[in-house]
Amino acid sequence: MILFFDLNISEKTEQFIFNRDESKHLVKVLRKKIDETITVTNGRGLEWKGVLIEVNVQKSIANCTAVIIHKPQKNKIHLAIAPTKNNNRMEWLIEKVTELGISSITPLLCDHSERRVIKKERFEKIAIAAMKQSLQFFIPQINDLTNFNAFIKVTKNSSFIAHCKNKSKELLSKSDLDSNNVTLLIGPEGDFSLREIELAINNKIKPISLGNQRFRTETAGLLACHTVFVKQLQKSNL
Amino acid sequence: MILFFDLNISEKTEQFIFNRDESKHLVKVLRKKIDETITVTNGRGLEWKGVLIEVNVQKSIANCTAVIIHKPQKNKIHLAIAPTKNNNRMEWLIEKVTELGISSITPLLCDHSERRVIKKERFEKIAIAAMKQSLQFFIPQINDLTNFNAFIKVTKNSSFIAHCKNKSKELLSKSDLDSNNVTLLIGPEGDFSLREIELAINNKIKPISLGNQRFRTETAGLLACHTVFVKQLQKSNL
Repeated sequence: MILFFDLNISEKTEQFIFNRDESKHLVKVLRKKIDETITVTNGRGLEWKGVLIEVNVQKSIANCTAVIIHKPQKNKIHLAIAPTKNNNRMEWLIEKVTELGISSITPLLCDHSERRVIKKERFEKIAIAAMKQSLQFFIPQINDLTNFNAFIKVTKNSSFIAHCKNKSKELLSKSDLDSNNVTLLIGPEGDFSLREIELAINNKIKPISLGNQRFRTETAGLLACHTVFVKQLQKSNL
Repeated sequence: MILFFDLNISEKTEQFIFNRDESKHLVKVLRKKIDETITVTNGRGLEWKGVLIEVNVQKSIANCTAVIIHKPQKNKIHLAIAPTKNNNRMEWLIEKVTELGISSITPLLCDHSERRVIKKERFEKIAIAAMKQSLQFFIPQINDLTNFNAFIKVTKNSSFIAHCKNKSKELLSKSDLDSNNVTLLIGPEGDFSLREIELAINNKIKPISLGNQRFRTETAGLLACHTVFVKQLQKSNL
C-alpha cells in the first residue's frame, strides 16, 4: 500500500483531486492507472480509500469508495527535548519517534541549549514522510519551541526528566508509569542545569536514568520513548 | 574527559606517541599542555592514562600513569542485520548500537537484500568515533558480510528473528531471553523470505515481533537491541 497525505481531507470528502506534484508522482513513478485504488490520510486517523477516475500528470482525481476512522492509541507519549546543535540529528529523531508512533513533540529551550531556533515546518514535513512510509494514520503534534520554565508549569503526570548528574534517580525501565499519558524530558548536549533539574523535581517530575551509558541527546530521546513503549507493550494483551 | 583510540596500545605500553593528525588535534583544537592528563583506549576494555611530556603539532608524547582494565559486559547482544540500501542509514545504526554498547554486528546477505557489498572499514571508523564520543572502552566487533544460510548454521541460543509476515510470533518485549548472550536477526527492506524464516525456525531461532508498527530496517535493528537492553536492565540490580 502507498499512503498519500492531505491535511484537509475528511470523512466527508467525496472526491479527491491530486495536485500537480502528486499527479506527476502518481503517473511517472507509481504508474497508477484509472480504476486503481488509492489511500489518503489526514494524519489525524483518517484512512480515505478512493478509486482513480482520472489520471494524468496535470491533475488526477479519485472518488471515495470507503472511509476508515482509526482511533488514536490509548497510550500516549509526549517527548519534550532540547533540539540538537546539529539539525540533522534532530530531524533523524523526528523520523524515528514518528515510526514509533508517539503523540507529540515539544522542542525545549534550556539553560544549556546551543540551538535556539527551529524550523517547525521542516520537522512537520519529516514527520509526514515518516508517517506515510510507516503506513500510519497519525502524525505527532509538533509544538513551538518552548522555554523550559514555561513547559514545567503546564506538564502533568506522569512526567520524567532524564539527566546525567550524579544524583538520586530511578531507572526508567523500572519506574511505574502511573498513567497512559507519559511525558519525557530530555536535555541538550550539555545536560539540564542543576536549577532546571531541581525546578522539575519541585514540579513532581521524576528524575530518571536510561542506564549507565552516555547517550547523545537524540539517542536518549528515542530510547526513552522506546523504553516507555516496551513497558506499555509488556502491560498489553498484544 | 576526551578519549583517544589506538588499536595497538596495551596495558604494557609505557609511552604513547600521538601521530601527526592527533598531535595537531591535541594542540590546535584541544589546546592541551605539558603535564596534562590524557586517556587512550584500544576498544577492548583498556583505559590507559598518561601525562603529556611533549606537546607539539608534529609529535606529542605521554607517559603512562595508570591503567584500568574494564571487564566486558556480562550481557552480550549480537545484531545480525541486512545492510540498508541507503548506506547512511546503516552508518547511523552502527553509531547508535555502539552508543548502546552491543558486542557484535554481522551484516547479513539475504534473499531480498538490495545492498550486496559493504565497506567494513568505514563501519569500524564510525564505531570507533561513537565509542570515543560516548566514553566507552569497547567497540562492537564488526564481522564480514555473511550469507544468511551460513549464519543460521553457526548461531546459538538465544536467537530471535524479527519479521513482518502474518505468522505466529511472540513479542520480543515479552519473550524469555534464556541467556545473557542474545542474537537478533533483522531483515532487509523487503523482509526475510518465507524460506529464510522457515530455515531459521528449523534452526531453533524464535520468530518475534517488535509491535504493530512497520519499522524501517535500521529502526528495527536499534529498537530490537534496545528491547533486549531494557529487559536486561529490568532483571539487573542497577
